[in-house]
Amino acid sequence: MKLQQLIKTHQLGLLFQQGKFGIEKESQRVDANGNIVTTAHPAAFGSRSYHPYIQTDFAESQLELITPPNEKLSDTLRWLSAIHEVTLRSLPESEYIFPLSMPAGLPPEDQIQEAQLENKWDVEYREHLSKIYGKYKQMVSGIHYNFQISDEFVEKLFSLQQSYSDPIEFRNALYMKLANNFLRYQWILVYLLAATPEVESQYFGEKSPLAAGQLVRSLRSSPYGYVNAPHVVINHDSLKDYVESLEHFVASGDLLAEKEFYSNVRLRGAKKARELLEKGVKYAEFRLFDLNPFAPYGITLEDAQFIHYFLLTMLWLEETGGQQAVEQGKAYLYQVALEDPRAPTGLQTEGEAILKTTLEMLEKIQAGKEIEAIVKAKLEQFADPSKTINGRLRQAIEKAGSYKALGAQLAQQYKAQAFERFYALSAFDNMELSTQALLFDLIQKGLNVEILDENDQFLAVKFGDHLEYVKNGNMTSHDQYISPLIMENKVVTKKVLAKAGFNVPKSVEFTSVEQAVAHYPLFEGKAVVIKPKSTNYGLGITIFQQGVTNRDDFRQAIEIAFREDKEVMVEDYLVGTEYRFFVLGDETLAVLLRVPANVIGDGVKTVRELVEAKNADPLRGDGSRSPLKKIALGEIEQLQLKEKGLTTESVPASGQIVQLRANSNISTGGDSIDMTDQMHESYKALAVGIAHAMGAKVCGVDLIIPDLSQPARPSLDSWGVIEANFNPMMMMHIFPYQGKSRRLTQNVIKMLFPELP
Amino acid sequence: MKLQQLIKTHQLGLLFQQGKFGIEKESQRVDANGNIVTTAHPAAFGSRSYHPYIQTDFAESQLELITPPNEKLSDTLRWLSAIHEVTLRSLPESEYIFPLSMPAGLPPEDQIQEAQLENKWDVEYREHLSKIYGKYKQMVSGIHYNFQISDEFVEKLFSLQQSYSDPIEFRNALYMKLANNFLRYQWILVYLLAATPEVESQYFGEKSPLAAGQLVRSLRSSPYGYVNAPHVVINHDSLKDYVESLEHFVASGDLLAEKEFYSNVRLRGAKKARELLEKGVKYAEFRLFDLNPFAPYGITLEDAQFIHYFLLTMLWLEETGGQQAVEQGKAYLYQVALEDPRAPTGLQTEGEAILKTTLEMLEKIQAGKEIEAIVKAKLEQFADPSKTINGRLRQAIEKAGSYKALGAQLAQQYKAQAFERFYALSAFDNMELSTQALLFDLIQKGLNVEILDENDQFLAVKFGDHLEYVKNGNMTSHDQYISPLIMENKVVTKKVLAKAGFNVPKSVEFTSVEQAVAHYPLFEGKAVVIKPKSTNYGLGITIFQQGVTNRDDFRQAIEIAFREDKEVMVEDYLVGTEYRFFVLGDETLAVLLRVPANVIGDGVKTVRELVEAKNADPLRGDGSRSPLKKIALGEIEQLQLKEKGLTTESVPASGQIVQLRANSNISTGGDSIDMTDQMHESYKALAVGIAHAMGAKVCGVDLIIPDLSQPARPSLDSWGVIEANFNPMMMMHIFPYQGKSRRLTQNVIKMLFPELP
Repeated sequence: MKLQQLIKTHQLGLLFQQGKFGIEKESQRVDANGNIVTTAHPAAFGSRSYHPYIQTDFAESQLELITPPNEKLSDTLRWLSAIHEVTLRSLPESEYIFPLSMPAGLPPEDQIQEAQLENKWDVEYREHLSKIYGKYKQMVSGIHYNFQISDEFVEKLFSLQQSYSDPIEFRNALYMKLANNFLRYQWILVYLLAATPEVESQYFGEKSPLAAGQLVRSLRSSPYGYVNAPHVVINHDSLKDYVESLEHFVASGDLLAEKEFYSNVRLRGAKKARELLEKGVKYAEFRLFDLNPFAPYGITLEDAQFIHYFLLTMLWLEETGGQQAVEQGKAYLYQVALEDPRAPTGLQTEGEAILKTTLEMLEKIQAGKEIEAIVKAKLEQFADPSKTINGRLRQAIEKAGSYKALGAQLAQQYKAQAFERFYALSAFDNMELSTQALLFDLIQKGLNVEILDENDQFLAVKFGDHLEYVKNGNMTSHDQYISPLIMENKVVTKKVLAKAGFNVPKSVEFTSVEQAVAHYPLFEGKAVVIKPKSTNYGLGITIFQQGVTNRDDFRQAIEIAFREDKEVMVEDYLVGTEYRFFVLGDETLAVLLRVPANVIGDGVKTVRELVEAKNADPLRGDGSRSPLKKIALGEIEQLQLKEKGLTTESVPASGQIVQLRANSNISTGGDSIDMTDQMHESYKALAVGIAHAMGAKVCGVDLIIPDLSQPARPSLDSWGVIEANFNPMMMMHIFPYQGKSRRLTQNVIKMLFPELP
Repeated sequence: MKLQQLIKTHQLGLLFQQGKFGIEKESQRVDANGNIVTTAHPAAFGSRSYHPYIQTDFAESQLELITPPNEKLSDTLRWLSAIHEVTLRSLPESEYIFPLSMPAGLPPEDQIQEAQLENKWDVEYREHLSKIYGKYKQMVSGIHYNFQISDEFVEKLFSLQQSYSDPIEFRNALYMKLANNFLRYQWILVYLLAATPEVESQYFGEKSPLAAGQLVRSLRSSPYGYVNAPHVVINHDSLKDYVESLEHFVASGDLLAEKEFYSNVRLRGAKKARELLEKGVKYAEFRLFDLNPFAPYGITLEDAQFIHYFLLTMLWLEETGGQQAVEQGKAYLYQVALEDPRAPTGLQTEGEAILKTTLEMLEKIQAGKEIEAIVKAKLEQFADPSKTINGRLRQAIEKAGSYKALGAQLAQQYKAQAFERFYALSAFDNMELSTQALLFDLIQKGLNVEILDENDQFLAVKFGDHLEYVKNGNMTSHDQYISPLIMENKVVTKKVLAKAGFNVPKSVEFTSVEQAVAHYPLFEGKAVVIKPKSTNYGLGITIFQQGVTNRDDFRQAIEIAFREDKEVMVEDYLVGTEYRFFVLGDETLAVLLRVPANVIGDGVKTVRELVEAKNADPLRGDGSRSPLKKIALGEIEQLQLKEKGLTTESVPASGQIVQLRANSNISTGGDSIDMTDQMHESYKALAVGIAHAMGAKVCGVDLIIPDLSQPARPSLDSWGVIEANFNPMMMMHIFPYQGKSRRLTQNVIKMLFPELP
């Protein structure tokens, strides 16, 4: 297969670099000291019988975190980050994720529980492994790297060659080349990326095969990792040979199942290897990788990119290894794995030659400067082992005192980092916070989620065969199309709500001052708002809170309003406090009070200092991606202070509330206060009724209520509805400034997937 | 009750003029010669057991058209127009609506069928009337004018007076004043508005009470109209007296039911008069009015306004008539009804005095110039009877030859007018044509419809207790909120449809020329479109319809596209014709082909003349309110001609198709051609599947199909989906340029109200 030639002639370089990438990462749950815990897999993660992201590997304590496949490696790493944040934030307070592959602080073997999966056979298989290999070996963790060659590339290549007439055969041969060449040269990745130089003696039981103080490159990739019995040799000459020899060892009982064959490459695409012959390989799984303790989530994007181009090199090479090459590779692997990591490798020349080939390939396929720099840096590491992960790790272990101590220290650090912006899902921070919160819950509970459009906050969520689409966190199939259209139109909203018998402030429109003034008697004694029909920035609005009692005042207000518009409205003014009711289905799930930006004096600090102190709250940010906003001290705030005879340097008395804004928007530093439990139930029922009248399932209802402790009466002085909102904000309820958090995103999921256990 | 004083002191003038108005109009279905038909009430009008707009009065041939109540009289007249247009367009071709009150061309009595209502008692009641009064008298038609005094006005007035302590009693007294003063002065309206000067002798049976050639002002309001037996005298001194005397005559058997009392005023608001005492009068029905044959729908807006202010005058008057005044009024009514219409009335002085009071009132309440002019014109008619409707009618009858001939002639004229813009509902012409069509169907079938926002095309539709909202003709509760959001986002649409397995053109995006050209092999031999990611006016687009075969051509196209945008897309080009599929639920209801503006030569006419001829189609208009648009001959069209070596003055050969536009939009003069029956069913099923994949109930799906007669295959060369539209246009299917009309609005109604019989 003259792949290089074909890529060059037909300029397939970019297509060659496409593909799909997925990562599976095992790691142990440990306590603050790095000891593996014996607690059950946290219930917060839903059921392992279907969870796509958070599973357990061999042991109950051994998390397996799985990203979905992505066309961009960077997306795969984002998913890895997101799944980690979800996991770390969902663990019990005393638990952490151990960042190194070799287990430390192993409990006695009898206390290690195999993963308690629902499928009985899965548990039995693990019990079998315990018997054959011992439990400790199974506790080693690592990273599996899944790579699917671009289907289009494979098809294009097939169409350009003559050696194969069957596209499946061609595809399988391509993957066999990838697998065998990888197995031949895998030692290079061990040299560069391995991070298991030692392990606590406990791991080996009574006697360690290593000399005291002996360091190696990779215990995990050495014969002391988990390996099959030496006589289990699978023939890699062709996929057919591979399948047949694998079946042979299963039939003979040497392997309990095909998956007991521990190769560093697995060809994927079917449940049984034999099916691959007919269906074709879909992707390959590379299982070689130790956890990188310096990467909070076990692997860096740069290393993942390096691995990608290393894999491409395996395809690019003119040679196509068979069984002999695979055997050679295994010998080299063991050799390098057990080398002293402080010394250069004995295979340096071959390693440098291969990476030089990679560099040549990068140029031919125009892969760009970025990856070129990464590969060059790796190439340099052959001459200087201290720059490899192992090299850096040795220094870090020395500093920490022990392998386990370093692991514990990093585990604590990474968990703390995952909590820094606890309201966000960092990897998806360019989406709205509500969608981030929803994504968090979906990942936690184990629903399949696909981001259809990140800028548009558009998700596809699947549970079994049940598919739902969600936009902006709560716009779904459960709402009717007509409901938001009703809410969008304030006139229609009022009519619909009035028809349904709710208290709606009445309004009368006028087209001339004289016409309006002639109607004065209609309004005499009533609390009214006089405003231009189209209000801009509140211009031209007059409020008679206590009722208008003087015709001249009324006329003046009308004249002011007419300066802004050709039509003027006189509307009932509702006296009371505005609350936001979040309705979902038949329930008001949250009630929120929004209070204008303010500080409370302590008799010591200036307004400026009080603002600074309040702004230190981690919930307060500057951009749009924080639940609360920092209070500014701009013109508007200073004007507000001035009206009360204050400046930013005034020192308010202890307990004195200093309001810094007239409006209560959260976006201008306002406080959100949960009032769900304080609100009289009658208003919650009204909010539900209002949502129903508009056919809405998810709805934000703004009610004006003078006294939230008194039951609602059917008159405007008891309550009134101002407007309703489709796609109501959820973040302010989830992370309020004060009061109880209401995790509304979980309710959205329950609404969409009532079948979820 | 010092109403004038209160209005003046408290400036209640404008409120006084508010209220609600409804009109009920009876008229006979007749043939082209004005003979009353004996056919059944048309089935097109749904069921009379609930129809709010189109009913029958006494006889099966006697239509009763009913407007909903409106706060503006002009809206009531618009409804009257709309209901008429629906009725006239739904009648059998040979039937018309007789525009005069007195019936002409009466069939023999035994051929007149009482209205065949579902309620048995309703039929029996009509049979009873036939016996007591004879059928002919019941065939007289007229207009009932419903007026509700503004509730706010009544409440305000009540709060300002001391005479009444009970608001219901006060309200009832106000309505009694209105009713009694009306009955006292109703002769004035007869003088001005009556239009039944004569009747065919047949009406009286064997001997006419009128002298040969005798003309009167109003036969209908005279004792020869339908009146109760003289001894049935109802006491109007108070509502209580009224109720008791009415009950007395029903108990005695002189009246079969309260409704058999034929007063020119009925107080409404309860089923039984007695209930009014407790519940209060809601509105009053004035039953005096002859049909105005010069108004296509029986009454002009000006006359309706005049009647409103006449009614206000009855409230405004200081006097409050009792039984004596009512008796006096009845005597005056009969006197004026039987006067010779050519002569001034004997009561001229009183009439002029009342209208002068009206004029004084108008000034005091600042009613405006318009109504002042109307009242002044009526005032002048006391001195010149020829200006009254009767006066004009006499001339028209003379010209037509006979009363019946005039009626037949006008009936034909009004029906023809109703068909002039047969695709529109003229009164609601500021709404979209689709909403007009939907309104038409709703009125025809008898669903209660309320226009919530005319500019926003927002309707509330009710059938029994079942309420639905509709925006833009087909945006309803039946679609999910998420569906339009999916369709709005082209990226998401593609992903959703691709996930569901539909043929979607693939696209690849590039950020540099070199990157794109490097991918050339991906596209070699394929039909592709190269375009800037954001297309503006089609700039920068290159299409390789036959497949791109040359790298340099490809590069050039890429370069052109990059001049317009920083990102360029290479998309599969779908070869074929674009069809619009209109999907509702599980069915493709219509398939449309849109053809660019064109004319077909005849070897004689120039392009300009051909365009003029084609533009004469009544479906083609200039604004937005016509199903098709006139073809322009502007720059774009002339350029298009020039490219083919033609000018507007060229004479195309017979059969030569001259295309005048590159685009196929209906809005630029394109033709719409229904292809529903020609389209292979497999594509219709696909369109349904595509709508379902997006959760859509109502959806416009655009498919590209090379051969509509061949069954669909699962590859892009058989068909592809370009995009989907929520709120798809319906008008182009309902009134296509060519092919069968698909009345989609009826399907929308069936979807919303499946329970509708």
